[in-house]
Amino acid sequence: MADSLDLVNRDPNSLNDHLKVQFEDVFGEPEGARSIDCVWKLSYTCFNCWLGLCYKLATLFYGICIAAEWGCEFAMIAFYHIWYITPMLRVCEINCAVFKKLMETCMGCCLTPCCEACGGFFIYFKK
Amino acid sequence: MADSLDLVNRDPNSLNDHLKVQFEDVFGEPEGARSIDCVWKLSYTCFNCWLGLCYKLATLFYGICIAAEWGCEFAMIAFYHIWYITPMLRVCEINCAVFKKLMETCMGCCLTPCCEACGGFFIYFKK
Amino acid sequence: MADSLDLVNRDPNSLNDHLKVQFEDVFGEPEGARSIDCVWKLSYTCFNCWLGLCYKLATLFYGICIAAEWGCEFAMIAFYHIWYITPMLRVCEINCAVFKKLMETCMGCCLTPCCEACGGFFIYFKK
Repeated sequence: MADSLDLVNRDPNSLNDHLKVQFEDVFGEPEGARSIDCVWKLSYTCFNCWLGLCYKLATLFYGICIAAEWGCEFAMIAFYHIWYITPMLRVCEINCAVFKKLMETCMGCCLTPCCEACGGFFIYFKK
Repeated sequence: MADSLDLVNRDPNSLNDHLKVQFEDVFGEPEGARSIDCVWKLSYTCFNCWLGLCYKLATLFYGICIAAEWGCEFAMIAFYHIWYITPMLRVCEINCAVFKKLMETCMGCCLTPCCEACGGFFIYFKK
Repeated sequence: MADSLDLVNRDPNSLNDHLKVQFEDVFGEPEGARSIDCVWKLSYTCFNCWLGLCYKLATLFYGICIAAEWGCEFAMIAFYHIWYITPMLRVCEINCAVFKKLMETCMGCCLTPCCEACGGFFIYFKK
């Protein structure tokens, strides 16, 4: 079932591109303020270690359950949308189409003549 | 009766294209935050299993009844629209057409001369 | 792990470009106000020494711990965003897509006919 899963590029739809959590995205020393090389290196290593460790542990403990929960949630959402909301929207559209025709007829006989008469104001713009 | 039903493409009119409920549409890990491979794979499998299971069960229990209900509903809607509303709209349109002519005549003799006279304001815009 | 770390350009993403803390960014004597040469030189040396010393000591004592803390923090942020917020946003998007369709239908039947009727005001602009 997991055959089609791409393990390298895990965000093909760029859902979480705003999450910039790499060391270079968080820390940066400008000219003039330089820590000792080994301190900078160790900070880099520590940051990455703890980031990886915490994230991996959190996903290990909760990730699979959360994915299962979202699976149920989205199944319900899909069910309601497909079997209730979309048909209801179709009913709504059908009624609105009739109402639109009625509105167009009423507007066409009440408002359009007035507006076109007032349009005479711009008679010299005629080409 | 079900010969003409396409079992592969079940949304030929793109009614529910907004329903993006696949794993890649919901989850995505950016660079820097990577869970263990097997956790990601298991999440994918769990998500798809629960999504499929819940949706299949819901449609199994309710789908057929709901489809039958909507069948009745749309039959009633079609009946009212074809036998009442559309002929009534025609009556309305016929009456409105007369009223429109009357309005155009009245406006043409009352409002249009005023507006065209005022339109003299823009006489030098004439091309 | 620290292989890909660039020790020369430590701010590839220009995060802290606003931090202008070099001597020339802070001090400058215009024409007419000139201190003795050796005083200016000594000021320069002192400024740089103390800047370097204080910054290096602070990063030596706290830098690595702080980096580790931020690692944990960003891991948690990434976790919540990837596993909670992004799927929730997807749910929100799905519901909004439906609401958009509904709005479009309503506007199409209520507002469009009115606006098109009022458009008769510009009848003489027709080409």
